Amino acid sequence: MTDPGSTALFTDHYELTMLASALRDGTAERECVFEAFTRRLPDGRRYGVVGGMERVLEAVENFRFGEAELRSLSREQVGDEETLAWLRDYRFRGDIDGYPEGELFFPGSPLLTVRGTFAEAVVLETVILSILNHDSAIAGAASRMVSAANGRRIIEMGSRRTHEESAVAAARAAYLAGFTGTSNLQAGLRYGIPTTGTSAHSFTLLHDTERSAFEAQTEALGTGTTLLVDTYDITTGIETAIDVAGTGLGAVRIDSGDVGVLARQAREQLDSLGATGTRIVVSGDLDEYAIAALRAEPVDGYGVGTSLVTGSGAPTAGMVYKLVEVEGRPVAKRSSHKESRGGGKGALRRHKSTGTALEELVYPTSPGHAPPQPGPHDRFVPIPLMRGGQRVEDLPGLEDNRQRLRHALVSVPWEGLKLSAGEPAIPTVFPDVS
Amino acid sequence: MTDPGSTALFTDHYELTMLASALRDGTAERECVFEAFTRRLPDGRRYGVVGGMERVLEAVENFRFGEAELRSLSREQVGDEETLAWLRDYRFRGDIDGYPEGELFFPGSPLLTVRGTFAEAVVLETVILSILNHDSAIAGAASRMVSAANGRRIIEMGSRRTHEESAVAAARAAYLAGFTGTSNLQAGLRYGIPTTGTSAHSFTLLHDTERSAFEAQTEALGTGTTLLVDTYDITTGIETAIDVAGTGLGAVRIDSGDVGVLARQAREQLDSLGATGTRIVVSGDLDEYAIAALRAEPVDGYGVGTSLVTGSGAPTAGMVYKLVEVEGRPVAKRSSHKESRGGGKGALRRHKSTGTALEELVYPTSPGHAPPQPGPHDRFVPIPLMRGGQRVEDLPGLEDNRQRLRHALVSVPWEGLKLSAGEPAIPTVFPDVS
Repeated sequence: MTDPGSTALFTDHYELTMLASALRDGTAERECVFEAFTRRLPDGRRYGVVGGMERVLEAVENFRFGEAELRSLSREQVGDEETLAWLRDYRFRGDIDGYPEGELFFPGSPLLTVRGTFAEAVVLETVILSILNHDSAIAGAASRMVSAANGRRIIEMGSRRTHEESAVAAARAAYLAGFTGTSNLQAGLRYGIPTTGTSAHSFTLLHDTERSAFEAQTEALGTGTTLLVDTYDITTGIETAIDVAGTGLGAVRIDSGDVGVLARQAREQLDSLGATGTRIVVSGDLDEYAIAALRAEPVDGYGVGTSLVTGSGAPTAGMVYKLVEVEGRPVAKRSSHKESRGGGKGALRRHKSTGTALEELVYPTSPGHAPPQPGPHDRFVPIPLMRGGQRVEDLPGLEDNRQRLRHALVSVPWEGLKLSAGEPAIPTVFPDVS
Repeated sequence: MTDPGSTALFTDHYELTMLASALRDGTAERECVFEAFTRRLPDGRRYGVVGGMERVLEAVENFRFGEAELRSLSREQVGDEETLAWLRDYRFRGDIDGYPEGELFFPGSPLLTVRGTFAEAVVLETVILSILNHDSAIAGAASRMVSAANGRRIIEMGSRRTHEESAVAAARAAYLAGFTGTSNLQAGLRYGIPTTGTSAHSFTLLHDTERSAFEAQTEALGTGTTLLVDTYDITTGIETAIDVAGTGLGAVRIDSGDVGVLARQAREQLDSLGATGTRIVVSGDLDEYAIAALRAEPVDGYGVGTSLVTGSGAPTAGMVYKLVEVEGRPVAKRSSHKESRGGGKGALRRHKSTGTALEELVYPTSPGHAPPQPGPHDRFVPIPLMRGGQRVEDLPGLEDNRQRLRHALVSVPWEGLKLSAGEPAIPTVFPDVS
């Protein structure tokens, strides 16, 4: 966030009532370990993609209670005087380890480990989960779309289908996952993501004729632009487009109808007009399956909206943030449902000598446990993100993490990249802890 | 938004390239009418609920390009000098009419009508749709949950499952739709929505025993609080809860398992302990169907998370923003798919003398058309929201609009309130325009 605004009230009420109770009986200062993980991947997905970790760190840094926040809490009687005084001085001073953005994750992967006092770590729960659940949901869906696009350009254009701020985060997550760019201008300003766009049907309708619209657009944006040819009749639209812009026209866009059939017809028409270099961009209710189905068609680029920003059927990643250790002692809920494994955890991803991932070994890090010995092709997945409340220096950036995902996907067993529903690409293994 | 930040870059790139092209050929100043509507309701829903209209007006007012925004556009070469100069002076000066929040809508209902020059109206498209699509999706789902809860308390607690800013808007939309309150503290600060919460499993796990956790909580929050009794064994948890807090304990919460069965057992146990006034609150993956299924169980309140903030299967409302009139002349896309009806429109909701809604009459308002004559029980749905870029005075507020929805639902034919999939509760009728 470039907005320096406080993130402190992106928080559930009960985090602060727990804080008030724990301050009162002294348990607030107990050293704790909280862990974010997901119990399952959505809808038969084969892998998850970590999104939002960088935004999590910013949110932790900006988790400060200013006067407006404190006044609101006081007015709503959310905390007593002692609690409000504690919040006034709040800043996170603990340690955070986590999976970097662009990393794959699986059920039970210890995505984020927060170490600190109960008080300082519990209050971060809501905003950490909001970010991880949203951004990872989008990154996971986006990665499948990028795989389906198979190297063709793919643009994120779903801003209008989701909350205005989610849209910016979604554009970022899509870019992380390999999208070429976004329509969202704020994502360009905030994160330096390439933005792109040319015109909508309204621009054609505004003009007296399609021809005059195309003339205005090529006049302003050059003949390398993309003309939207499906406002009236597509065949006429393409003919007019080439007539106006010449055979050097950058691209035509088709936004409706059976885009596979229409793309083939458009390619034939463009070629027959001599516009063999004019690309064909399709959009309109595409998801990963529709993109995959167009693989054999002469499509040069995809614009993806609704399905991207809604996580293509899985709008949230199902992550939870659980207390797993108190003063070095593993703790876990023990009732009949939603059980968790107690104790802090690390993760070692094991690979064959070919580089193909074999399993996610999730091992205990609580006192008395030694980490496993990595083989020559194995690697520990979490990295240090914060120490003593300070962000670790030289953390990988968005472009690094974009590369990371590309490499990680190469390591997945081939069945793991299938779009169809199935088991996770690699199993998560929890060694028996004696 | 209390944040005075600019909304100007919550905008698709192509809005500004269209602007640049239209400024160049002079069409930018043509008087236009844009209309927001949805072609269909999601998933067999019977009605939609307008959410976000108030946020739309704020976004329009805050749609200003500051130096940071202009620098970003210049750097990315989104617009030429003329375009940037025009944006520097931008403010919306046109008129807006729309369905107030809490109003029902149906396929084709003219939810929002923006009148102004092409230039000033087209640039608002993205942010208007982001807000309406998100907030109406949540309000629509929330309304069904409130109906299913049938008068019992229902609390929104899904912040952690969605983007941190969406969470605030979702809490607002849920409250609009009749939720009792929210866990989201920012929604309390920003919109004055009642916030609520007590404790999570982590609070019990932090303590050496469940008893000491309950003691700490009742000490800090009083015996009117809600104790979470399912961290270990529910029967023991309830026994301990009453032992600690006495029979005046406010409530117990059950967050996992077969909550219907557990609620019945809990009620029996509480009654046998003499805690006949202690309420039972259930949470954990509830949606409108689960809530309805609990109607016969001794449940006093519901906490709803994931399904609320994700629109219970319909995370976006499918609204579009279409140019329908240019200089008084109706315009519409004419290719084979996604057709629209040209021309500005009004809506008259017709009712029987009993007050039951009959149909949504969507009639043309473009030059040469007279509005229909309302019968004694009919009413025009859209209201003026902005005139000359200024918000109309004394617009209804959140509490008014909460009442509005309650009244509107009473007017729906009874089949229209069923949770099962089906046709819209009333048909939308477009008179033949000769």
